[in-house]
Amino acid sequence: MTQDTQLTTTSWIDISVPLYTNMVHWPGDPTVQIERVTDLDQGDVATLSKVSMSVHSGTHMDAPAHFLKGGASIDKMPIEATIGRARVIEIQDIESIKPEELERHNIRIAERILFKTKNSTRAWQSASFVKDFVYISQEAAQYLAKVQVQTVGIDYLSVGGFTKDGPETHHALLGAGIWVIEGLHLSQVQPGTYELVCLPLKMLGCEGAPARAILRPLVGTQKA
Amino acid sequence: MTQDTQLTTTSWIDISVPLYTNMVHWPGDPTVQIERVTDLDQGDVATLSKVSMSVHSGTHMDAPAHFLKGGASIDKMPIEATIGRARVIEIQDIESIKPEELERHNIRIAERILFKTKNSTRAWQSASFVKDFVYISQEAAQYLAKVQVQTVGIDYLSVGGFTKDGPETHHALLGAGIWVIEGLHLSQVQPGTYELVCLPLKMLGCEGAPARAILRPLVGTQKA
Repeated sequence: MTQDTQLTTTSWIDISVPLYTNMVHWPGDPTVQIERVTDLDQGDVATLSKVSMSVHSGTHMDAPAHFLKGGASIDKMPIEATIGRARVIEIQDIESIKPEELERHNIRIAERILFKTKNSTRAWQSASFVKDFVYISQEAAQYLAKVQVQTVGIDYLSVGGFTKDGPETHHALLGAGIWVIEGLHLSQVQPGTYELVCLPLKMLGCEGAPARAILRPLVGTQKA
Repeated sequence: MTQDTQLTTTSWIDISVPLYTNMVHWPGDPTVQIERVTDLDQGDVATLSKVSMSVHSGTHMDAPAHFLKGGASIDKMPIEATIGRARVIEIQDIESIKPEELERHNIRIAERILFKTKNSTRAWQSASFVKDFVYISQEAAQYLAKVQVQTVGIDYLSVGGFTKDGPETHHALLGAGIWVIEGLHLSQVQPGTYELVCLPLKMLGCEGAPARAILRPLVGTQKA
């Protein structure tokens, strides 16, 4: 967030998906399980729940350590990576994000970019995992790495594809020091410039963490 | 956050405790366990972790449903409850927070109040659970309920005491619609006025959730 940024009074838009037992997850990863340990309705003095899940469940972040040996863990992320001006870019391609489409958006160094793809109106509507979600092609990931954006977000469970460009896209982004937000819910968000707040849990030495993310429109003209 | 609030360029202060396996926890509650499911160092294509824990681990929030039948769950919290102007009040009493000490601070309706007690320099330093942490007495909780503050935070694992004023303090606060942040780490924070951002995970129907919380000083004079 920069000195010339002024807060608006516009309400926050929650761009996190809710976490619940057996929610959609990356195939093979540990599922989300939330169980009651004690329960007011069973006569206990309080209700208390236990959660068990992959740290890459729902809306979450990836740290370099996810795909890079010796890479930084999520607790090392500078808070500024996910708080401040961000741009929501709408992607037309129904297969993947490609450099040709990105070039039209004049993406600049240090930007926080959130991609709203067809996933927002399609993939999240399905209770089961959607394999052909729109992903960032490895060429587009290399483009973003070259531009040196600060943070990239996507509106389904991975920046990389299910059968293609999984490790390659992660390597290109995380290897360039770009912080990655996955599992965003952008169906209520129009393309444009926003104030982003995304806070991952402070999981010590971990390669990622579940996160809560919110947006609100910025008023006036701000510099990056 | 109000219209007259101006962002500063001061850095954020992280007031969350790190989450790690077997960290200090409320006696009897499920412990934090973070395990590697796959590991780059073992030849896997990526590192992936699974977490299991009480949702009241480390820095976290309590929703009314924690102690009130039919109370709101954490996913129903208005985001404004934990984003905006907040006041850090330093408590001198080494046993508990009492109304007499609160009265000196002119606490007003809708304030977000974070209590920095002796816990910040004592309880968090211990690897095992500290039973005689400074808590909010039920009388002080009733005082805060009467004032109608918006949000209350404390610098150890519960607003209520271990042997005294546990359910009573929770009932008084949560019953008044006050949102509760527990497990804050305030040792680096001086008393004063700050911009607070605290985001709990969006756990559907859950009585609480782990959270990340940060602060930064506000510049100038702001209205609540």
